[in-house]
Amino acid sequence: MKQVTVSRKAHFNAAHRLFRKDWSDAKNQEVFDKCNNPFYHGHNYELIVSVTGTIDPETGYVMDMKILKDLIKIHVEDAFDHKNLNEQVPEFASLIPTAEHIAVVIWEKLRPKIHKEHDLSITLYETPRNFVQYSGPNLNQN
Amino acid sequence: MKQVTVSRKAHFNAAHRLFRKDWSDAKNQEVFDKCNNPFYHGHNYELIVSVTGTIDPETGYVMDMKILKDLIKIHVEDAFDHKNLNEQVPEFASLIPTAEHIAVVIWEKLRPKIHKEHDLSITLYETPRNFVQYSGPNLNQN
Amino acid sequence: MKQVTVSRKAHFNAAHRLFRKDWSDAKNQEVFDKCNNPFYHGHNYELIVSVTGTIDPETGYVMDMKILKDLIKIHVEDAFDHKNLNEQVPEFASLIPTAEHIAVVIWEKLRPKIHKEHDLSITLYETPRNFVQYSGPNLNQN
Amino acid sequence: MKQVTVSRKAHFNAAHRLFRKDWSDAKNQEVFDKCNNPFYHGHNYELIVSVTGTIDPETGYVMDMKILKDLIKIHVEDAFDHKNLNEQVPEFASLIPTAEHIAVVIWEKLRPKIHKEHDLSITLYETPRNFVQYSGPNLNQN
Amino acid sequence: MKQVTVSRKAHFNAAHRLFRKDWSDAKNQEVFDKCNNPFYHGHNYELIVSVTGTIDPETGYVMDMKILKDLIKIHVEDAFDHKNLNEQVPEFASLIPTAEHIAVVIWEKLRPKIHKEHDLSITLYETPRNFVQYSGPNLNQN
Amino acid sequence: MKQVTVSRKAHFNAAHRLFRKDWSDAKNQEVFDKCNNPFYHGHNYELIVSVTGTIDPETGYVMDMKILKDLIKIHVEDAFDHKNLNEQVPEFASLIPTAEHIAVVIWEKLRPKIHKEHDLSITLYETPRNFVQYSGPNLNQN
Repeated sequence: MKQVTVSRKAHFNAAHRLFRKDWSDAKNQEVFDKCNNPFYHGHNYELIVSVTGTIDPETGYVMDMKILKDLIKIHVEDAFDHKNLNEQVPEFASLIPTAEHIAVVIWEKLRPKIHKEHDLSITLYETPRNFVQYSGPNLNQN
Repeated sequence: MKQVTVSRKAHFNAAHRLFRKDWSDAKNQEVFDKCNNPFYHGHNYELIVSVTGTIDPETGYVMDMKILKDLIKIHVEDAFDHKNLNEQVPEFASLIPTAEHIAVVIWEKLRPKIHKEHDLSITLYETPRNFVQYSGPNLNQN
Repeated sequence: MKQVTVSRKAHFNAAHRLFRKDWSDAKNQEVFDKCNNPFYHGHNYELIVSVTGTIDPETGYVMDMKILKDLIKIHVEDAFDHKNLNEQVPEFASLIPTAEHIAVVIWEKLRPKIHKEHDLSITLYETPRNFVQYSGPNLNQN
Repeated sequence: MKQVTVSRKAHFNAAHRLFRKDWSDAKNQEVFDKCNNPFYHGHNYELIVSVTGTIDPETGYVMDMKILKDLIKIHVEDAFDHKNLNEQVPEFASLIPTAEHIAVVIWEKLRPKIHKEHDLSITLYETPRNFVQYSGPNLNQN
Repeated sequence: MKQVTVSRKAHFNAAHRLFRKDWSDAKNQEVFDKCNNPFYHGHNYELIVSVTGTIDPETGYVMDMKILKDLIKIHVEDAFDHKNLNEQVPEFASLIPTAEHIAVVIWEKLRPKIHKEHDLSITLYETPRNFVQYSGPNLNQN
Repeated sequence: MKQVTVSRKAHFNAAHRLFRKDWSDAKNQEVFDKCNNPFYHGHNYELIVSVTGTIDPETGYVMDMKILKDLIKIHVEDAFDHKNLNEQVPEFASLIPTAEHIAVVIWEKLRPKIHKEHDLSITLYETPRNFVQYSGPNLNQN
């Protein structure tokens, strides 16, 4: 069986702020520094969604990239683009929108839409110099 | 005289919102669409500052790029990075922070710091797909 | 008056072949070499459309980039993407689809859609290492 | 033993068409959409060939990158560049030239030329937004 | 437990030469070719440092990227940037500064500074077309 | 007459040092800072050669890019690649190899090889963040 990983790039722009309501201003500033700006700052998030599976011998595809593109559009771009993540995206009502958490949230939103036998991995660039990767909970370690 | 353009790239992240206080919500929405999000959104702005002048025969430089790097740091990065442009940057208190206006403001901040006989041009990427360029007021047309 | 150039990137994929029906096979091969492959080859064309004009004091825009994006979609992407330029794009029925000619055709298609007082410039990457720029006929030289 | 992965980028331009002769036009259109254009379309394929092995203590190399560059030139670039994959590349006479299949074919062409104890992985960008990876048949699953 | 990989890009410029003192000039030339230039040549090395660990539930971080940025500054950039690797960096006094070895040296310098339960991986671009990856000694094979 | 600019990218790696023999060590250090390292440092220079002229109505080309590619190979890559600019490239025997001077030297080497009625412009990236442009002596100002 030939396993191939197919990847699709997308992007969205959003504002966010890193802080915990249950911490003092001083502690938030110490830990999150300028990312704690109460007026928010923002990023162009570059996203890579990777799906690993065997090639369908009929089509030569692992999965149709148009379908993957549409899934990203509906579940990520429409939900996050030009939004304030803290204020307007329900997943971050009580979850700090670090790049790590955004990647996990995207993975959890897309996972049920991807074929059960396919693996899913999310790469998210917060800036051209900082990026994160998440491929799902590490089952072996639980 | 050999004229050369030397350019330096930099970047900053910021939140912004496009709207006019003197317009109705409906008109703001019609004109600025999702850029009018009242909770803000944000970008990784990529900046290119270009200085044109003759080569100094002593140093082989048009200008020392370390000096240009420091000017950008002090006058642009420290002023704009991780800020909300509308709320925290005085130049945009009454100026809509479109990419065009941000480029003009950067040019006006840097122009007095650059040698009088040098020309200055600003290129600003708001996203990897949208960018603007400003090289100062077109004197011939005034 | 503050003149700013605003640019928008887009892309399309197409097949083409460089040859002249009125030349012998040998001459086509000598001049166009492997670009003369009768079975066609193809490229991911990366396009930058640049519009220069004064900033509208009401909106802070030279022009609304969503409108520019839509013009490129309708007049370039829908017309060229996933097409064989020689066989399926009428402009190249009798015009060799070199990068130079493609840039000129794009300029001529978009020019009537852009505000009369704005200047238009087309940059087209045929490969990441080869690109061309066209800004309209050089009136001074005619 | 210090295992390092060394990678080399290359590229080629080609035309292709996605369709099955044994399917109706309607089914080909439904599945492959605009990639089914009977006049072909094309891409600038960007290729990354990665070889994993231990560092040779004599040279400090996993393998000489000049040799890898030449292998890619002979077995991939010379075979695919400026070609119509469907019509002129024997491997695709009866194999749909999807990005997945092209990556598998490149892996199978290069595998016999790479040291037996080295692992080989192929990354192929069909467009700047779509790419695939193949690292050989997953033996554990057979 | 949610394992995420966080990555930070950095760069440095350096000169180097590939050769062995214990080989003849002819053998050095044969093996290292133009990389053996006794007057040195140089590169802009682009570095990606990747750290894999579980997300800290308090901060939403695997590790603070400002700390990672500072570690790279102190242990890699300050040590290698604008240096002649062969002559001025002690680690290469008797180790050929191939990209493979530079990646291993960076890994060994950073490993003690990274949390014991985190994994570390180094990606180093010697040119835009050549790059290497090292993730530590492969313990299973020793 | 339709004027088009055609551009070709290339690259070379080299070592260099910025200093003046007629200055004291202290003055060289003050002006050129870490670029004055007596053991040299190096860069991956990325080069863009741009030629502006009218489209040849017979071929659709301003000039054959294969010819431009070969001119760059012979006059720039073969002369500069994997070299120490100060020690091994005659043009820099008494000229400080700043990016500005390297661009001027490349322009002067290529200018006689380009059609008299074509304009020539050189863009040279010394690092991904620093680049220069030279388009020949500004005749109007002499």
